[in-house]
Amino acid sequence: MSLNPQYEDIGKGFVQQYYAIFDDPANRANVVNFYSATDSFMTFEGHQIQGAPKILEKVQSLTFQKITRVITTVDSQPTFDGGVLINVLGRLQADDDPPLAFNQTFLLKPGGCGFYVERDIFRLSLHNV
Amino acid sequence: MSLNPQYEDIGKGFVQQYYAIFDDPANRANVVNFYSATDSFMTFEGHQIQGAPKILEKVQSLTFQKITRVITTVDSQPTFDGGVLINVLGRLQADDDPPLAFNQTFLLKPGGCGFYVERDIFRLSLHNV
Repeated sequence: MSLNPQYEDIGKGFVQQYYAIFDDPANRANVVNFYSATDSFMTFEGHQIQGAPKILEKVQSLTFQKITRVITTVDSQPTFDGGVLINVLGRLQADDDPPLAFNQTFLLKPGGCGFYVERDIFRLSLHNV
Repeated sequence: MSLNPQYEDIGKGFVQQYYAIFDDPANRANVVNFYSATDSFMTFEGHQIQGAPKILEKVQSLTFQKITRVITTVDSQPTFDGGVLINVLGRLQADDDPPLAFNQTFLLKPGGCGFYVERDIFRLSLHNV
Protein backbone atom coordinates (compact mmCIF):
# COMPACT_ATOMS: atom_id res chain seq x y z
CA MET A 1 0.00 0.00 0.00
CA SER A 2 1.49 3.33 -1.00
CA LEU A 3 -0.61 6.48 -0.94
CA ASN A 4 0.89 9.40 -2.83
CA PRO A 5 0.79 12.37 -0.42
CA GLN A 6 0.81 14.76 -3.41
CA TYR A 7 -2.56 13.45 -4.65
CA GLU A 8 -4.28 16.82 -4.42
CA ASP A 9 -1.65 18.67 -6.46
CA ILE A 10 -1.48 15.76 -8.92
CA GLY A 11 -5.25 15.87 -9.39
CA LYS A 12 -5.43 19.62 -9.88
CA GLY A 13 -2.37 19.70 -12.12
CA PHE A 14 -3.67 16.86 -14.27
CA VAL A 15 -7.10 18.45 -14.73
CA GLN A 16 -5.57 21.77 -15.76
CA GLN A 17 -3.19 20.12 -18.21
CA TYR A 18 -5.77 17.71 -19.66
CA TYR A 19 -8.37 20.36 -20.44
CA ALA A 20 -5.79 22.84 -21.76
CA ILE A 21 -4.99 20.23 -24.42
CA PHE A 22 -8.53 18.93 -24.97
CA ASP A 23 -10.09 22.39 -25.30
CA ASP A 24 -7.63 23.54 -27.95
CA PRO A 25 -8.87 22.18 -31.29
CA ALA A 26 -5.37 22.26 -32.80
CA ASN A 27 -4.02 20.22 -29.90
CA ARG A 28 -6.99 18.04 -28.94
CA ALA A 29 -5.76 14.78 -30.51
CA ASN A 30 -2.76 14.89 -28.18
CA VAL A 31 -4.92 13.88 -25.20
CA VAL A 32 -4.41 10.36 -26.54
CA ASN A 33 -0.96 10.51 -24.90
CA PHE A 34 -2.64 10.38 -21.50
CA TYR A 35 -4.09 6.92 -22.24
CA SER A 36 -2.62 3.43 -22.40
CA ALA A 37 -2.72 1.61 -25.73
CA THR A 38 -4.51 -1.33 -24.14
CA ASP A 39 -5.40 -0.73 -20.50
CA SER A 40 -7.39 2.53 -20.59
CA PHE A 41 -11.19 2.50 -20.53
CA MET A 42 -13.30 5.50 -21.48
CA THR A 43 -17.06 5.74 -21.03
CA PHE A 44 -18.25 8.71 -23.06
CA GLU A 45 -21.93 9.52 -22.60
CA GLY A 46 -22.62 5.87 -21.75
CA HIS A 47 -20.56 4.28 -24.54
CA GLN A 48 -17.57 2.30 -23.31
CA ILE A 49 -14.40 1.97 -25.39
CA GLN A 50 -10.98 0.54 -24.55
CA GLY A 51 -7.44 1.48 -25.60
CA ALA A 52 -5.80 4.63 -26.89
CA PRO A 53 -6.49 3.99 -30.62
CA LYS A 54 -10.27 3.85 -30.07
CA ILE A 55 -10.12 6.79 -27.68
CA LEU A 56 -8.30 8.81 -30.32
CA GLU A 57 -10.96 7.85 -32.87
CA LYS A 58 -13.65 9.08 -30.47
CA VAL A 59 -11.87 12.37 -29.77
CA GLN A 60 -11.31 12.97 -33.49
CA SER A 61 -14.99 12.31 -34.23
CA LEU A 62 -16.10 15.27 -32.09
CA THR A 63 -17.34 17.97 -34.43
CA PHE A 64 -17.13 21.09 -32.27
CA GLN A 65 -14.09 23.33 -32.37
CA LYS A 66 -13.90 25.75 -29.45
CA ILE A 67 -14.72 24.73 -25.89
CA THR A 68 -15.24 27.29 -23.16
CA ARG A 69 -14.95 25.47 -19.85
CA VAL A 70 -15.45 26.45 -16.22
CA ILE A 71 -14.31 24.00 -13.53
CA THR A 72 -16.50 24.13 -10.42
CA THR A 73 -14.91 21.44 -8.22
CA VAL A 74 -12.00 18.98 -8.40
CA ASP A 75 -12.07 16.26 -5.72
CA SER A 76 -9.02 13.96 -5.58
CA GLN A 77 -8.31 10.89 -3.46
CA PRO A 78 -5.13 8.79 -3.32
CA THR A 79 -5.43 5.07 -4.17
CA PHE A 80 -3.32 2.36 -2.54
CA ASP A 81 -1.34 1.65 -5.71
CA GLY A 82 0.01 5.21 -5.83
CA GLY A 83 -2.71 6.41 -8.22
CA VAL A 84 -5.27 9.20 -7.88
CA LEU A 85 -9.06 9.13 -8.25
CA ILE A 86 -10.32 12.50 -9.54
CA ASN A 87 -13.86 13.77 -9.84
CA VAL A 88 -14.54 16.98 -11.78
CA LEU A 89 -17.74 19.02 -11.93
CA GLY A 90 -18.11 22.06 -14.15
CA ARG A 91 -19.82 23.49 -17.17
CA LEU A 92 -18.79 23.78 -20.77
CA GLN A 93 -19.91 25.46 -23.93
CA ALA A 94 -19.02 23.86 -27.27
CA ASP A 95 -18.84 26.49 -30.02
CA ASP A 96 -22.10 28.48 -29.76
CA ASP A 97 -24.19 25.71 -28.18
CA PRO A 98 -25.95 26.41 -24.88
CA PRO A 99 -23.67 25.86 -21.84
CA LEU A 100 -24.12 22.45 -20.15
CA ALA A 101 -23.06 21.01 -16.83
CA PHE A 102 -20.56 18.17 -17.12
CA ASN A 103 -19.00 15.57 -14.86
CA GLN A 104 -15.80 13.64 -15.50
CA THR A 105 -14.15 10.98 -13.35
CA PHE A 106 -10.52 9.99 -13.94
CA LEU A 107 -8.57 7.17 -12.34
CA LEU A 108 -4.86 7.91 -12.76
CA LYS A 109 -2.26 5.17 -12.41
CA PRO A 110 1.47 5.60 -12.01
CA GLY A 111 3.37 4.41 -15.09
CA GLY A 112 6.17 5.47 -17.39
CA CYS A 113 7.49 8.84 -16.28
CA GLY A 114 4.27 10.02 -14.66
CA PHE A 115 0.63 9.01 -14.65
CA TYR A 116 -1.74 7.68 -17.28
CA VAL A 117 -5.54 7.69 -17.35
CA GLU A 118 -6.65 4.14 -16.65
CA ARG A 119 -10.36 4.94 -16.29
CA ASP A 120 -12.33 7.90 -17.63
CA ILE A 121 -16.10 8.46 -17.35
CA PHE A 122 -17.62 11.55 -18.98
CA ARG A 123 -21.21 12.79 -18.81
CA LEU A 124 -22.98 15.95 -19.84
CA SER A 125 -25.93 16.92 -17.68
CA LEU A 126 -29.36 16.81 -19.23
CA HIS A 127 -30.19 20.28 -18.05
CA ASN A 128 -28.64 23.66 -18.78
CA VAL A 129 -26.87 25.68 -16.12
CA MET B 1 -5.32 -8.58 -14.21
CA SER B 2 -8.85 -9.83 -13.71
CA LEU B 3 -11.80 -7.82 -15.00
CA ASN B 4 -15.14 -8.85 -13.55
CA PRO B 5 -17.46 -9.35 -16.55
CA GLN B 6 -20.48 -8.67 -14.30
CA TYR B 7 -19.33 -5.09 -13.61
CA GLU B 8 -22.48 -3.51 -15.02
CA ASP B 9 -24.86 -5.59 -12.91
CA ILE B 10 -22.62 -5.16 -9.87
CA GLY B 11 -22.65 -1.36 -10.34
CA LYS B 12 -26.41 -1.10 -10.80
CA GLY B 13 -27.13 -3.54 -7.99
CA PHE B 14 -24.83 -1.75 -5.59
CA VAL B 15 -26.29 1.69 -6.34
CA GLN B 16 -29.83 0.42 -5.79
CA GLN B 17 -28.92 -1.31 -2.54
CA TYR B 18 -26.79 1.56 -1.20
CA TYR B 19 -29.40 4.26 -1.68
CA ALA B 20 -32.26 2.04 -0.43
CA ILE B 21 -30.37 1.92 2.88
CA PHE B 22 -29.07 5.50 2.87
CA ASP B 23 -32.42 7.07 2.01
CA ASP B 24 -34.28 5.29 4.82
CA PRO B 25 -33.66 7.32 8.00
CA ALA B 26 -34.27 4.28 10.22
CA ASN B 27 -31.68 2.28 8.29
CA ARG B 28 -29.18 4.97 7.20
CA ALA B 29 -26.45 4.17 9.73
CA ASN B 30 -26.17 0.68 8.20
CA VAL B 31 -24.39 2.07 5.13
CA VAL B 32 -21.31 1.92 7.34
CA ASN B 33 -21.25 -1.81 6.58
CA PHE B 34 -20.25 -1.00 2.99
CA TYR B 35 -17.00 0.61 4.17
CA SER B 36 -13.72 -0.76 5.50
CA ALA B 37 -12.71 0.15 9.06
CA THR B 38 -9.38 1.52 7.84
CA ASP B 39 -9.10 1.51 4.03
CA SER B 40 -12.18 3.46 2.90
CA PHE B 41 -11.94 7.13 1.95
CA MET B 42 -14.98 9.39 1.66
CA THR B 43 -14.92 12.94 0.30
CA PHE B 44 -18.22 14.55 1.23
CA GLU B 45 -18.69 18.01 -0.23
CA GLY B 46 -14.94 18.52 -0.32
CA HIS B 47 -14.14 17.17 3.16
CA GLN B 48 -12.09 13.98 3.16
CA ILE B 49 -12.40 11.40 5.93
CA GLN B 50 -10.99 7.90 6.27
CA GLY B 51 -12.31 4.70 7.84
CA ALA B 52 -15.77 3.39 8.72
CA PRO B 53 -15.96 4.95 12.22
CA LYS B 54 -15.51 8.50 10.85
CA ILE B 55 -17.82 7.77 7.94
CA LEU B 56 -20.49 6.61 10.38
CA GLU B 57 -20.01 9.80 12.40
CA LYS B 58 -20.52 11.85 9.23
CA VAL B 59 -23.64 9.93 8.21
CA GLN B 60 -25.11 10.28 11.70
CA SER B 61 -24.45 14.03 11.69
CA LEU B 62 -26.78 14.57 8.71
CA THR B 63 -29.87 16.32 9.99
CA PHE B 64 -32.42 15.59 7.26
CA GLN B 65 -34.78 12.64 7.53
CA LYS B 66 -36.47 11.74 4.25
CA ILE B 67 -34.59 11.71 0.95
CA THR B 68 -36.43 11.54 -2.36
CA ARG B 69 -33.91 10.49 -5.00
CA VAL B 70 -34.00 10.09 -8.77
CA ILE B 71 -31.06 8.35 -10.45
CA THR B 72 -30.35 9.74 -13.93
CA THR B 73 -27.30 7.69 -15.01
CA VAL B 74 -25.11 4.94 -13.58
CA ASP B 75 -21.82 4.38 -15.48
CA SER B 76 -19.72 1.41 -14.36
CA GLN B 77 -16.27 0.23 -15.45
CA PRO B 78 -14.36 -2.88 -14.35
CA THR B 79 -10.93 -2.37 -12.75
CA PHE B 80 -8.03 -4.79 -13.15
CA ASP B 81 -8.17 -5.96 -9.54
CA GLY B 82 -11.72 -7.26 -9.95
CA GLY B 83 -13.29 -4.06 -8.61
CA VAL B 84 -15.80 -1.67 -10.17
CA LEU B 85 -15.64 2.10 -10.68
CA ILE B 86 -19.14 3.61 -10.57
CA ASN B 87 -20.27 7.12 -11.40
CA VAL B 88 -23.81 8.21 -10.49
CA LEU B 89 -25.67 11.34 -11.57
CA GLY B 90 -29.11 12.21 -10.29
CA ARG B 91 -31.11 14.58 -8.18
CA LEU B 92 -32.29 14.42 -4.61
CA GLN B 93 -34.59 16.26 -2.29
CA ALA B 94 -33.86 16.22 1.45
CA ASP B 95 -37.05 16.68 3.46
CA ASP B 96 -38.76 19.77 2.01
CA ASP B 97 -35.60 21.44 0.66
CA PRO B 98 -35.42 22.36 -3.03
CA PRO B 99 -34.29 19.43 -5.23
CA LEU B 100 -30.57 19.48 -6.12
CA ALA B 101 -28.46 17.68 -8.68
CA PHE B 102 -25.90 15.32 -7.15
CA ASN B 103 -22.92 13.29 -8.30
CA GLN B 104 -21.37 10.33 -6.50
CA THR B 105 -18.36 8.23 -7.50
CA PHE B 106 -17.73 4.86 -5.87
CA LEU B 107 -14.71 2.62 -6.25
CA LEU B 108 -15.71 -0.89 -5.17
CA LYS B 109 -13.09 -3.47 -4.25
CA PRO B 110 -13.62 -7.21 -3.85
CA GLY B 111 -13.26 -8.32 -0.23
CA GLY B 112 -14.96 -10.50 2.32
CA CYS B 113 -18.07 -12.06 0.81
CA GLY B 114 -18.64 -9.34 -1.77
CA PHE B 115 -17.49 -5.79 -2.38
CA TYR B 116 -16.71 -2.86 -0.14
CA VAL B 117 -16.53 0.86 -0.94
CA GLU B 118 -12.85 1.79 -1.03
CA ARG B 119 -13.37 5.30 -2.41
CA ASP B 120 -16.46 7.52 -2.32
CA ILE B 121 -16.76 11.12 -3.59
CA PHE B 122 -20.05 12.95 -3.13
CA ARG B 123 -21.03 16.39 -4.42
CA LEU B 124 -24.25 18.34 -4.59
CA SER B 125 -24.53 20.68 -7.55
CA LEU B 126 -24.59 24.38 -6.84
CA HIS B 127 -27.65 24.90 -8.98
CA ASN B 128 -31.18 23.55 -8.72
CA VAL B 129 -32.61 21.18 -11.29
